[in-house]
Amino acid sequence: MTQALAGFRPARRTPAEPVPLAAALHRVPAGPVAAPHALPGFARSTVDGYAVRAADTYGVSDGLPGYLQLTGAVLMGAEPSVTVGPGTAVSMPTGGVLPPGADAVVMVEYTQQVMPGTVEVVRPVAPGEGVVRADEDAAPGAELVPAGRPLRAQDLAMLAAAGVTTVTAYARPRVTVFSTGDEVVPPETATLRPGQVRDATAVALAAMAAESGGEPALSGIIPDDPEALETALRAALAASDLVVISAGSSVGARDETAGVVGRLGTIWCHGLAVKPGKPTLLAECEGVPVIGLPGNPRSALVVFRLLGVPLVRLVGGCTAPPAEPSVRARLARDLPSAAGRLDVVQVRVADGVATPVFGLSALLSVITVADGYVIIPEEATGLDAGTEVDVTIYR
Amino acid sequence: MTQALAGFRPARRTPAEPVPLAAALHRVPAGPVAAPHALPGFARSTVDGYAVRAADTYGVSDGLPGYLQLTGAVLMGAEPSVTVGPGTAVSMPTGGVLPPGADAVVMVEYTQQVMPGTVEVVRPVAPGEGVVRADEDAAPGAELVPAGRPLRAQDLAMLAAAGVTTVTAYARPRVTVFSTGDEVVPPETATLRPGQVRDATAVALAAMAAESGGEPALSGIIPDDPEALETALRAALAASDLVVISAGSSVGARDETAGVVGRLGTIWCHGLAVKPGKPTLLAECEGVPVIGLPGNPRSALVVFRLLGVPLVRLVGGCTAPPAEPSVRARLARDLPSAAGRLDVVQVRVADGVATPVFGLSALLSVITVADGYVIIPEEATGLDAGTEVDVTIYR
Repeated sequence: MTQALAGFRPARRTPAEPVPLAAALHRVPAGPVAAPHALPGFARSTVDGYAVRAADTYGVSDGLPGYLQLTGAVLMGAEPSVTVGPGTAVSMPTGGVLPPGADAVVMVEYTQQVMPGTVEVVRPVAPGEGVVRADEDAAPGAELVPAGRPLRAQDLAMLAAAGVTTVTAYARPRVTVFSTGDEVVPPETATLRPGQVRDATAVALAAMAAESGGEPALSGIIPDDPEALETALRAALAASDLVVISAGSSVGARDETAGVVGRLGTIWCHGLAVKPGKPTLLAECEGVPVIGLPGNPRSALVVFRLLGVPLVRLVGGCTAPPAEPSVRARLARDLPSAAGRLDVVQVRVADGVATPVFGLSALLSVITVADGYVIIPEEATGLDAGTEVDVTIYR
Repeated sequence: MTQALAGFRPARRTPAEPVPLAAALHRVPAGPVAAPHALPGFARSTVDGYAVRAADTYGVSDGLPGYLQLTGAVLMGAEPSVTVGPGTAVSMPTGGVLPPGADAVVMVEYTQQVMPGTVEVVRPVAPGEGVVRADEDAAPGAELVPAGRPLRAQDLAMLAAAGVTTVTAYARPRVTVFSTGDEVVPPETATLRPGQVRDATAVALAAMAAESGGEPALSGIIPDDPEALETALRAALAASDLVVISAGSSVGARDETAGVVGRLGTIWCHGLAVKPGKPTLLAECEGVPVIGLPGNPRSALVVFRLLGVPLVRLVGGCTAPPAEPSVRARLARDLPSAAGRLDVVQVRVADGVATPVFGLSALLSVITVADGYVIIPEEATGLDAGTEVDVTIYR
């Protein structure tokens, strides 16, 4: 299982495309973005106060104030019209341009206008104090955002500050999802005939694909018929960066899926040492990675989260996947597990205690009542009650 | 600060609206959704094998097999055409309907067809084994999803299984963002005049509003002029569930914003014991919560994450906000902090060590190079190097 996670690394990557900044949250830059010029671009006051020559304030104190001649004011967003010479001061708003001649800004709190045209200063400033340098936020050419890491809100801010309003990002991977099974009917089906089940998996897989940066497309339900499956798979391969088959639940249906996939490409593995999720298939057909998921909706969702989400990210150029929320908790009871098999155990979490939710892998309710899951690695033969575990929290 | 977080609880909630399941990921149900009927709705085989009367298998073993007459087969998605009587068996695919008369399914692995029409069974089954009951996933009327918790992928699966293809959810809160300041120009501005800065904050606030379930609208840049601000604020209030003003950075500009907001509603607080973010304003105008953010982009983003994101969720009916990713890490160095003030310290995280990123609050780069942040609560006067802290990770 760990081998499958680490070893199946299809070469496919989506092409790069221009993305406007307003639509770029969580998009993955195809290359690092460099600052086109220095930021903020001018020496800027960080406080309300007076631009001065720092040397003019040396030694001043409450008991022995200094006095400077007020020669003008800097306005927001405007070039200063005055320079600061020895013994003079210019009033400054926070964010204003430092006038020529000044090397510091005294905070207004440490000054008084004792009479019109004269500023009393009671604290000394060092050169550079109260000022952000012209290239202090970014030097020209500095990396504003790295390649491969999904853009976060603050990255958009930095790009906007630099005037970068279009980012070259990997296209969202087109993830085609289809379901197979003679018993499967669309969720819209109001009344079921005996033996029919609604397609629960496709909408959830599409949601997870979108959450991980993909562009999902639902291709409907294919009957248990190799020819129909082959036709559907061929069409999907031509229009997708990743194909997900939510396979039939019976052994026969699974073998059929594997047969069709094998004819169109190379099966990388069929059957994983994971519970739930054993009957999983990983393949590459015509350069497109293909995942065949178990027929049980719950198993399918567990496996897609473990294998599908990283694949969507990989194909979409994401080399630094965002962290999943997780909490540390103590197990409420023993969890048995077979060595050599990775177990995914659903848990509820309250007050630092993780209580396993058990139930048949055919039951969706096991995963809908869970807050998250615990992974018991292949090498472990189980975990004792009271063990501190990492719970990955669903969101 | 903690008081501001806990105490400012505007009553506004968005109205409920129907949302199709395919668009319902992370949407917040306005009420619990109950199962319209039992799920899966019929007793269903969980294995490939043979439907039997469990009593017919008692005592069988490898040494002493039992023999049953094969009387038919259940097909996927179809009603069984045969019943199981004493001494008989019917072949079953995983997921097939348990035929009348049968109470268990023997896995195919424990059987052999020794001659046509006869099944040899070498393991006994208990009643109910190999079967999921008709209401085992959900009884009629059982809660499929709770109100107030954003829908996760598996919740969509459960709703689809139950045939619920439209969810009544709170409308996404309309979050209007505008910026003020004579120095602020749109990000598209190719060349800046001295003293001008591009609006870095608005696009990032919009992204965070969207991430927390809101529908952001950018209303542009308002000059430092109370009348213009009042006109813009009035228009925004009429069309919004939450208004965010990225205020001017100077004291004068902030006072102007507070004056205008105060004329149109009630200021709940102006000035927070948080660093960065002190000059934050919280108000309610015409039933719409209003946040006035500090002028420094970095402070604005920090405060919006702490106060704005929970407000967007609250107004959008979310009573169980999803977990943020976090990691435990050891501080690389001492962090001083004033008692009575909440400090938000940006950090990089590697190998379990959180290294603070310092820099003026005017610098965006401090927050773009950070992986996450550490909160030093009001009561603390700092944290020592080596202390284990929770780092909230950006995503």
